[in-house]
Amino acid sequence: MNIRRLLPFTDWLFHYQRRNLSGDLLAGVIVTIMLIPQSLAYAMLAGLPPEYGLYASIAPLLIYGLLGTSRTLSVGPVAVVSLLTATALTPLATPGSADYIKLAILLAAMTGVIQLVLGLVRGGFISNLLSHPVVAGFITGSSILIVISQLKHVLGVKAAGGHLPYESVIGLVQAAPGTNFVTFAMGVAAIALLLFFRKPFRKLLERVGLSKGAAQMLARTGPALLVLAGIGSIYFFGLDSAYGVRVVGDFPTGLPDFSLPTLDLPVIGSLLPAALAIVLAGYVESVSVGRSLGARRRQTIDPNQELVALGAANIAAGLTSGFPVTGGFSRSVVNFDAGANTGLASIITAVLIGVVTLALAPLFTSLPQVVLAATVIVAVAGLINFRQLWHLWKYSKADGAMMALTIVGVLGLGVEIGIGLGVGMSLLLYMARASRPHMAVVGRLGQSEHFRNVKRHAVITYPGLLLLRVDENLFFANTRNVEDRIMKQVSEQPDLRDIVLIFSAVNSVDSSALESLEGLIERLRSLGITLHLAEVKGPVMDRFDAIGFTKHLEPGQVFISTHRAVEALRPPTAPARAA
Amino acid sequence: MNIRRLLPFTDWLFHYQRRNLSGDLLAGVIVTIMLIPQSLAYAMLAGLPPEYGLYASIAPLLIYGLLGTSRTLSVGPVAVVSLLTATALTPLATPGSADYIKLAILLAAMTGVIQLVLGLVRGGFISNLLSHPVVAGFITGSSILIVISQLKHVLGVKAAGGHLPYESVIGLVQAAPGTNFVTFAMGVAAIALLLFFRKPFRKLLERVGLSKGAAQMLARTGPALLVLAGIGSIYFFGLDSAYGVRVVGDFPTGLPDFSLPTLDLPVIGSLLPAALAIVLAGYVESVSVGRSLGARRRQTIDPNQELVALGAANIAAGLTSGFPVTGGFSRSVVNFDAGANTGLASIITAVLIGVVTLALAPLFTSLPQVVLAATVIVAVAGLINFRQLWHLWKYSKADGAMMALTIVGVLGLGVEIGIGLGVGMSLLLYMARASRPHMAVVGRLGQSEHFRNVKRHAVITYPGLLLLRVDENLFFANTRNVEDRIMKQVSEQPDLRDIVLIFSAVNSVDSSALESLEGLIERLRSLGITLHLAEVKGPVMDRFDAIGFTKHLEPGQVFISTHRAVEALRPPTAPARAA
Repeated sequence: MNIRRLLPFTDWLFHYQRRNLSGDLLAGVIVTIMLIPQSLAYAMLAGLPPEYGLYASIAPLLIYGLLGTSRTLSVGPVAVVSLLTATALTPLATPGSADYIKLAILLAAMTGVIQLVLGLVRGGFISNLLSHPVVAGFITGSSILIVISQLKHVLGVKAAGGHLPYESVIGLVQAAPGTNFVTFAMGVAAIALLLFFRKPFRKLLERVGLSKGAAQMLARTGPALLVLAGIGSIYFFGLDSAYGVRVVGDFPTGLPDFSLPTLDLPVIGSLLPAALAIVLAGYVESVSVGRSLGARRRQTIDPNQELVALGAANIAAGLTSGFPVTGGFSRSVVNFDAGANTGLASIITAVLIGVVTLALAPLFTSLPQVVLAATVIVAVAGLINFRQLWHLWKYSKADGAMMALTIVGVLGLGVEIGIGLGVGMSLLLYMARASRPHMAVVGRLGQSEHFRNVKRHAVITYPGLLLLRVDENLFFANTRNVEDRIMKQVSEQPDLRDIVLIFSAVNSVDSSALESLEGLIERLRSLGITLHLAEVKGPVMDRFDAIGFTKHLEPGQVFISTHRAVEALRPPTAPARAA
Repeated sequence: MNIRRLLPFTDWLFHYQRRNLSGDLLAGVIVTIMLIPQSLAYAMLAGLPPEYGLYASIAPLLIYGLLGTSRTLSVGPVAVVSLLTATALTPLATPGSADYIKLAILLAAMTGVIQLVLGLVRGGFISNLLSHPVVAGFITGSSILIVISQLKHVLGVKAAGGHLPYESVIGLVQAAPGTNFVTFAMGVAAIALLLFFRKPFRKLLERVGLSKGAAQMLARTGPALLVLAGIGSIYFFGLDSAYGVRVVGDFPTGLPDFSLPTLDLPVIGSLLPAALAIVLAGYVESVSVGRSLGARRRQTIDPNQELVALGAANIAAGLTSGFPVTGGFSRSVVNFDAGANTGLASIITAVLIGVVTLALAPLFTSLPQVVLAATVIVAVAGLINFRQLWHLWKYSKADGAMMALTIVGVLGLGVEIGIGLGVGMSLLLYMARASRPHMAVVGRLGQSEHFRNVKRHAVITYPGLLLLRVDENLFFANTRNVEDRIMKQVSEQPDLRDIVLIFSAVNSVDSSALESLEGLIERLRSLGITLHLAEVKGPVMDRFDAIGFTKHLEPGQVFISTHRAVEALRPPTAPARAA
């Protein structure tokens, strides 16, 4: 059972059904065509020579195909993770240098190890730390950063970067006068063509009689065709030597080497924040894509096994000269639409990318960088979404402010700090809310055994007896507030002799709340007031018994019901009061 | 009203009642006698010349006396905050040097500004981030560190310290062969005497006929008497020149100067983590003491105004050559027991300390350092509490582990990282718990309008209709789990046509949960399943309406009750199923 959970391919590989093959094959081919330009482009975004994009698209896909629980997720280089990689490594080494490449490989391995361990200890819940406003703000902010980072390639200039985003903008503005207009024209044309392929081209194909599916699939070869056109323009017109259009240049033939990443503790320490950001951001992207695709076919994914699979894929990347990868949105949708049925589709893509790396490498030396930049820009520009900010603000000012803060953080202070700021603020805000639990003073409803909020119902209260219902679990963040509110009641009612806390909605009491209760009991005792409990649930009572809490309570008691408590504690002579 | 809240002294100063005077006066005097040795000792612990302890015990007390909402809290230098000060500053400057003093003053001002701002924005809830196991672990761990830091004074050696705690231990062991045995003997005697004053001396006084109160008060002069004895031993026997017993030495006469702290941005940046740790640790200590003393007299404190008052006190410390202060436990108890009625007691102490600084300064030049070290050791040794670890472990393994982790963190990695580790881990653990909310599939109880958990009751369910009650607020940390569990139900029940989510226990739905609901609706729709809601509370519905959520839901509906939902959705012909 456990082995089957850790090795999901045992579910489909050993009794592979032939009817699945055509879908897997077609999806594998289509994704390959889409992945070639994307992987080259994202490697460039990550600050690496483009061939490393292909390297990161072989072993990781193979491994994920075997270990992933999503049948349709397509793993490989993605925009956000590539940006995080570039941000982390640029201060430590020169982009494209041998040192830089080593660091990228190490980062992939570190990300993989963290994800793998987290998955094995079933720590997938950490992705819950990323609230929707933070994710939305992060995506919009980092997409803007990515577009900015690619503009220098579109202008055909070498711009000075910097540690902080605004420095890149300054560098770009300073370099703008040196724009290479041939490159710029190619860039604008490439972006226009890519946008054309996205929708109008598909509609056109449909109008000339192609089926919807066929039109969609043909339209998706657009970026690959553009790459070929770009290569052709250099090859036939010599735009590189004649007009200084920058090309990819050296592009080694052959599969990546297998090698262990160099382990250097101080370097690992300095890469740790980036690795954690990639673990989190990569996992959230991957798992949400996997979830929504799975749901369309009534398949579920196992979030913890997904971490294991992504971890293994990143370790594979680290061992085969790759850089950090994760499940990408657009590619996975293509994989799904093209009919992928099992992990075999991913494995086929991996094999085909391997073949391309062996056979087509010489072609890519003539690929203009501006074509890759256009690919990146078109891929991420659609993710910039300010309308969502307005939508969130309308629903909840706090959530809107959180998205705005994350965008500002990402743009002003960088992706890692921005994401950290967002996570920290949403936790703080949640804690601020959780620290004020709902509580109600209750009274008896007529002569019934029911007790209701005195503020909402005409109920009977008893002099000297306070009935207080706590409507939330007691834990460290709210226990002091509960204590304060009880003491406030005490200071307002000088004749108080007994307090009954009604625990009907309390499912857990952590040790902070327990300690607070013990302190409260003693303080109340010194004021001549006794604290009682009522309707304590079984699991809570078990814990209380484990440390002999009821002794602390004495002479206070634990009552089965509020009714019993009132029967036992109400002054026998004094008349009831109608509140 | 608002002014009165910000200036609590308006409640007692302008119509001061004469009957309060004797209590305030006595408390002021007793606390002064106790504060003199403590303030000198804690200054030494903080790495400052002892006179700075007196400086930190004048203006801050005056300010807190006026602005604090606790009538009995005694503010001034305390052990933990002094340790945090030393830890933060030692890597940046040589203890006792002019640069070091400047940094300590700046740290006090920074702490004050942060506390003041936090109090004004009513951010007192941040102290809720510190759970009981983390506080307990922090106190035990840092008390051990404090004892270790003072042992070199007891041995009379100069030991090499270091950035990490274990380096101090190594330094101590290496320096141990050079022990000054006269100093050591004085240290052991001083510790023994202080322990004797704590309890046996009081009992003795009671036995010879003194009242309990008088005995207690006389016993509390013990540490001050010891200081006088120490000064005498140097003055009359010349132990410093004859045996090399280290004394305080230079001790300037006169009140501290008023001066603005030097503002240096990079320095402020590097002090920020320490300032935050002091804000948090100092506030938690102060507010918990203030709360428990207030409760004994049915007085409450205002946690946010306490932050304002502590902030103003620390800013005052920063302007008058002080170092970070907070409300101390033992001194406040003494203040309370001696009969302090209003902030006047603190103001009297401040004035008396001022007089001492002016008049008695020459005496302190002959004070042996070992006497101060003994004062510190006896003050904190009682706070080391491993029994609590066992107690916590018995109640909850997770909470016990958290305390152990914090102790290990503080001892192994230092106080700031230790406290950060504890806070981070308790948040994570809480999020892990909160991410699995309670949910129940419900069915109809007989022919009633009541619906109960199918696992606990014999209820009626309907084919194609799933009734699911969500028992917790929906927010970013649990929304994905809810989604997964719903989709799991969907994948298990292929005939499902309608799902009703019962929101009777849902008080809030944040934007992450909303987005998740919207996604869920669409996915279910693509599977031919309609999502409905029932028993949505007013405030939740208002938010839904603000963004037109009900349109998203269509053709799903929002039902007033589960009963109505079942009436509308159950198949008219199909028979009910008994579960």
